[in-house]
Amino acid sequence: MKMLHDNLGVNEKGHLTIAGVDTVVLAKEHGTPLIVFDENKLRENCRIYKESMARHFGENSLALYAGKAFCCKEMYRIAADEGVGADVVSGGELYTAVSAGFPTDRVFFHGNNKTDAEIAYAIDNRIGYFVVDNREELDAIQAIAHKKGIVQKIILRATPGIDPHTHAKISTGKVDSKFGTAVETGQIEALTDYALELENIDLKGYHCHIGSQVFDIDPFCDAADIMLDFIAKMREHKGFEASVLNLGGGFGVRYVQSDPEIDYDKNIGEISEHVKSKCSSLNLKMPAVLMEPGRSIVADAALTLYTAGSVKTITGYKSYVSIDGGMTDNPRYALYQSEYTVYCANKMNETPDFKCTVAGRCCESGDLIQENVLLPSPKRGDIIAVLVTGAYNYSMASNYNRVTRPEVVSVKDGKAKVIIKRETYEHMTALDV
Amino acid sequence: MKMLHDNLGVNEKGHLTIAGVDTVVLAKEHGTPLIVFDENKLRENCRIYKESMARHFGENSLALYAGKAFCCKEMYRIAADEGVGADVVSGGELYTAVSAGFPTDRVFFHGNNKTDAEIAYAIDNRIGYFVVDNREELDAIQAIAHKKGIVQKIILRATPGIDPHTHAKISTGKVDSKFGTAVETGQIEALTDYALELENIDLKGYHCHIGSQVFDIDPFCDAADIMLDFIAKMREHKGFEASVLNLGGGFGVRYVQSDPEIDYDKNIGEISEHVKSKCSSLNLKMPAVLMEPGRSIVADAALTLYTAGSVKTITGYKSYVSIDGGMTDNPRYALYQSEYTVYCANKMNETPDFKCTVAGRCCESGDLIQENVLLPSPKRGDIIAVLVTGAYNYSMASNYNRVTRPEVVSVKDGKAKVIIKRETYEHMTALDV
Repeated sequence: MKMLHDNLGVNEKGHLTIAGVDTVVLAKEHGTPLIVFDENKLRENCRIYKESMARHFGENSLALYAGKAFCCKEMYRIAADEGVGADVVSGGELYTAVSAGFPTDRVFFHGNNKTDAEIAYAIDNRIGYFVVDNREELDAIQAIAHKKGIVQKIILRATPGIDPHTHAKISTGKVDSKFGTAVETGQIEALTDYALELENIDLKGYHCHIGSQVFDIDPFCDAADIMLDFIAKMREHKGFEASVLNLGGGFGVRYVQSDPEIDYDKNIGEISEHVKSKCSSLNLKMPAVLMEPGRSIVADAALTLYTAGSVKTITGYKSYVSIDGGMTDNPRYALYQSEYTVYCANKMNETPDFKCTVAGRCCESGDLIQENVLLPSPKRGDIIAVLVTGAYNYSMASNYNRVTRPEVVSVKDGKAKVIIKRETYEHMTALDV
Repeated sequence: MKMLHDNLGVNEKGHLTIAGVDTVVLAKEHGTPLIVFDENKLRENCRIYKESMARHFGENSLALYAGKAFCCKEMYRIAADEGVGADVVSGGELYTAVSAGFPTDRVFFHGNNKTDAEIAYAIDNRIGYFVVDNREELDAIQAIAHKKGIVQKIILRATPGIDPHTHAKISTGKVDSKFGTAVETGQIEALTDYALELENIDLKGYHCHIGSQVFDIDPFCDAADIMLDFIAKMREHKGFEASVLNLGGGFGVRYVQSDPEIDYDKNIGEISEHVKSKCSSLNLKMPAVLMEPGRSIVADAALTLYTAGSVKTITGYKSYVSIDGGMTDNPRYALYQSEYTVYCANKMNETPDFKCTVAGRCCESGDLIQENVLLPSPKRGDIIAVLVTGAYNYSMASNYNRVTRPEVVSVKDGKAKVIIKRETYEHMTALDV
């Protein structure tokens, strides 16, 4: 059986393993739902970006881990340890990074609506850069930086006008976007002028992000072209040469067998060739290139284990297998009809010939994990594994139906350690008066 | 200006009021995002159901508040006080009800996948009824009730095969459903046989639920017909006459001016006439009728206040107003493209002629609250009010982007009290190791 990712396997008991650890044993020892991360895979994914970017873009390049994909203290410890930077999108993510001892000079603060309190908090913590979305934010940063007597480094978020032919909801580089300031309309040029005039602002360059789950490098190259043309124009018109170009995130991840296998190093190499050639043709000094991998660092490093409850065949219609989690820990099917690979972890060597919909436990019809899944005659008590759940699962978890959030463990060298504790009823209701 | 609901108004400062309280003052005193409930409206909505059901269906009828719409201790205190029962869907909801001193004999435990631990917890707390979804659950309840030496009252959840012509994701009464056991396929009859044989199970009747946001009474009457025909058949075939018929929830709520105004008392009256006539034609004793209002108890009792951040016009495209919340406190637009009424709370007397998309603060393109909203020249710092947010907002809230969950207050007699505290960074990260 060819597994979806190389850290998955099947042991002599016919149980699914991750990093060599028996998932059925993990489910028994830790309870379900349980999210299991492979620590070495997390580190390896960080290293692929760090080393590949250094090799192709040079030593002043930097991969920023996009914490929104999976944010907890342990993840920032690993990212710090592996020498990548961080893209944070809220005071809460910054708080988590700071609590984990993450070096804040490698932090970039993103978001289309940073509050004044968050800006002040970030400046107090000496973050590296703000990725400025709009003029009101620029005014707020200028005012707060002035008050605190510092000069703040920033880059401006531009919308290059690229549609990466991905799902509309997770496509962000088009001109019509809540994010950033458009190149096409001339508005990013006006914002550049404005930023260059501000006393407590040090404009270093630009950011763009074209979308998510992009499998093709062409949209990245197209975006880089638009941005480098714009940078050349700024040099020509205003004598301002950007020294930082952040190309954002968005590399796709393999969720199911029909998704392509992705060679991140090769992609980064090809994008770098494109960027170098474009810089050369424009006679531009190569800027420090940044990228913001989130999903591709964490997604394939984890899986989620559930216990099956009811198995229901509606005569003449179809079958449902209910699990003890669902949209509360993984709302991606409800939001985007995302595809997932689902196994019966305790029956990996049995024939998967029972076609069913895997349904969550919430009182909501849309709470499904996947339709048309093949499982080997599932029964109450079986362990259901959903693969590639490291990204946008725990980070989007809710207490809908007052379901508590799952435990998260990481495994390494055959041992599991808890990195996020299972939520208790007491914790969940602690804010209720 | 005709307001959407009668507890909303505009005061002499041109500010939006709820229950006579100035929302701009509330936003200033409590911060934003802030969810504001009108306590009298909550109580009035409970009473409409309680009194209307008693008048039309008789004194043994019962309205069960469906806590999944909005679940916190204060809500259960109000529900207990107003004499309604509770429909809980998880151990966490039951824990919340128990913590608030809710009388558990009026609790019905729902859900397509109750765990053994939850069943034991519910039995230990002497809940009134389980609404049994499937055979595996029935086996589990029998085993646990037997072990504890009690006889447990239950009703069976049936799927009557009604499509209420509502949004597919929130339509639950169709035969193809993860919930319940179908009437059409004969499976509910087999489950009835099975339940009647079990020693520690006392089968009292049936439950059905056709869906959500249903504005028409016909689907309820159709479902009642199917269920009463089935009850008559069970009496004839097996000598079992159900004494409880739970018709579920699903009455629509008015979110926007184009939604109809709904007279719940009139609807309940008409359904009761239909049920009485059907019982009479079948020569059935009228069962105790239950209903499960959730949304229609809490939705129009609340609104959410946000602070506007950036206001962005993309030349030749459209305009965005970003707020300091979004899908983290209200994921309904992201999930269902739900409609909402949006005001600028501090400029109620100004002309709303600025067409814009109201966007949340998450780093996700789909994080919108509403498109094509008309606001009066919005500016950073304005207070944006989203109406009718009492249901499926806070209860579905997440910490996505590590955004903390908002504070919830209730207002009464001109005073506000906190009913759910604003989440702190410390609380949000307390489970991180």
